[in-house]
Amino acid sequence: MKELEERIQNDGQILGNGILKVDSFVNHQVDASLMDHCGKEFAERFAKLGATKVLTAEISGIAPALTTALHLGLPVVYARKTKPITMPDQVYLTLAPSHTKGRMVELIISPEYLAHGEKVLIIDDFLATGATILGLVRLAEAAGAKIVGVGALIEKTFEGGRAALKALGIPVESLASITSMEGGKIIFNGH
Amino acid sequence: MKELEERIQNDGQILGNGILKVDSFVNHQVDASLMDHCGKEFAERFAKLGATKVLTAEISGIAPALTTALHLGLPVVYARKTKPITMPDQVYLTLAPSHTKGRMVELIISPEYLAHGEKVLIIDDFLATGATILGLVRLAEAAGAKIVGVGALIEKTFEGGRAALKALGIPVESLASITSMEGGKIIFNGH
Repeated sequence: MKELEERIQNDGQILGNGILKVDSFVNHQVDASLMDHCGKEFAERFAKLGATKVLTAEISGIAPALTTALHLGLPVVYARKTKPITMPDQVYLTLAPSHTKGRMVELIISPEYLAHGEKVLIIDDFLATGATILGLVRLAEAAGAKIVGVGALIEKTFEGGRAALKALGIPVESLASITSMEGGKIIFNGH
Repeated sequence: MKELEERIQNDGQILGNGILKVDSFVNHQVDASLMDHCGKEFAERFAKLGATKVLTAEISGIAPALTTALHLGLPVVYARKTKPITMPDQVYLTLAPSHTKGRMVELIISPEYLAHGEKVLIIDDFLATGATILGLVRLAEAAGAKIVGVGALIEKTFEGGRAALKALGIPVESLASITSMEGGKIIFNGH
């Protein structure tokens, strides 16, 4: 998606250690209009999957998941990383490594909002190693839900996430696919 | 706002201790369409303030702040509760008590995304004691920004938040104003 690629090229910052900082439009400050366009694009790409729910992980997945859900006319559930007091004692919980936090984090979903038989579209900001998304997949499977697709705003193809998701046999779409950040230069797939 | 009040009346759960659980449409599962309508309503009510940025706190403020920002054509910044590695060492940080977490939480904003002279509209999910919103006000003031308005999806009038914000002398709008939850019954202002 050209608009997102251009924004990453102009405003993304490579911090080293494979970290791409997009805090000015995705992660801390959010460009609402860009997120809406990304959500529309995801909705078009995944329109035929018959998803019944969008699933993401707090915090930075919320914005693209919400706009995607809006364009698909679906509710969105975001997995929590700490259990709020409003959540029942019995939950679906898994652990996933966080790249930007440098430690394992919990991903928690209440059984109230993910039911057996639901068709789940996962949307997140990054597809890197795929660890967070695989955590969401485990939670959905624990609930007896079926994952029908995975969408990420930004894929770093050199971190292996797509291969890690391959066994799921479902469509995986990214709106900006980065093949290299070597030497401080961002190269997109196909350019 | 009738749509939100009806949803709270139908799907909100009073958990005791002044906690209103709205996890099925605001806090864990999000009704994207309802959030969009709420964002549109905020955008209309605050249209004339000349805001340059929407500000909220992660996590549950993100959805209504994003849809408000979308309808106003503005970017949104969400204060972080833990400092990610992408954030510079020098930040604006304040502490605020979290009702649902039962402890103090940090609210952190990078100086990169809140500038001197900006006109800030604060949007959050709840206005209860006003503690989180006052934390955001302190951060904005530290940045030399001006708060021009405060919007909350749900106000609990019996917790004093509106009085706490009164000294700011700015418009405070809530879309559903709850005057009592006594005896397990939710009473809205004006009904």
